[in-house]
Amino acid sequence: MIKRKNELEIKEIEGLRGGVGKLKMTEILSKDELQNEGKLFSRVILEKNSSVGLHKHVNDFEVYYILKGVGLVEEESGTYTVNEGDVVYTCDGEQHSLLNIGDSELEMLAVVINNNCN
Amino acid sequence: MIKRKNELEIKEIEGLRGGVGKLKMTEILSKDELQNEGKLFSRVILEKNSSVGLHKHVNDFEVYYILKGVGLVEEESGTYTVNEGDVVYTCDGEQHSLLNIGDSELEMLAVVINNNCN
Repeated sequence: MIKRKNELEIKEIEGLRGGVGKLKMTEILSKDELQNEGKLFSRVILEKNSSVGLHKHVNDFEVYYILKGVGLVEEESGTYTVNEGDVVYTCDGEQHSLLNIGDSELEMLAVVINNNCN
Repeated sequence: MIKRKNELEIKEIEGLRGGVGKLKMTEILSKDELQNEGKLFSRVILEKNSSVGLHKHVNDFEVYYILKGVGLVEEESGTYTVNEGDVVYTCDGEQHSLLNIGDSELEMLAVVINNNCN
């Protein structure tokens, strides 16, 4: 089945997970299409100086795949700059946040899968 | 955990699934990191005139998210041109192929998840 770009649902969200500023989420697959295997499969565009706030994953894990821009990731283990092509892999029980620290939008793919990382 | 772009495993493959030409797969998550929930989570770059051959999904479903370029998708229901931002969603029991028909590389994200679409 083909889902066209202009048919995908787009949500504009402010302060996601206690973050600052605005982001736009384009839904690539809905929860139904994920067949209860995951909660999220979206392209996310963070405006300059915007963030996804620090949040913990419980009984699922998340992947951020950076498509464009520069971000600052906070994890338990430290704070890291991420760029195009980098992967943030956050297991259940762990937490992360992501702030756009670049001069333009930060784009990424975000996928949440229902399982533990053990 | 951060996985840096230059640490990701890249495979060059010719004639994938009976297709023609060459492609490059960058592994975003390994099977182990997918926790047996999926078989593939990769960025795929198809050279000009290259393809992933027609193949059927059994007990899993696949998503192609087109990042760049122009492709021709063949499914049971027909043949479709796809562009940046389009989604190809192929359920278990269905088949698909993808040919790069553009003037440059075709880039996409390919994810295979272990479940049926029912």
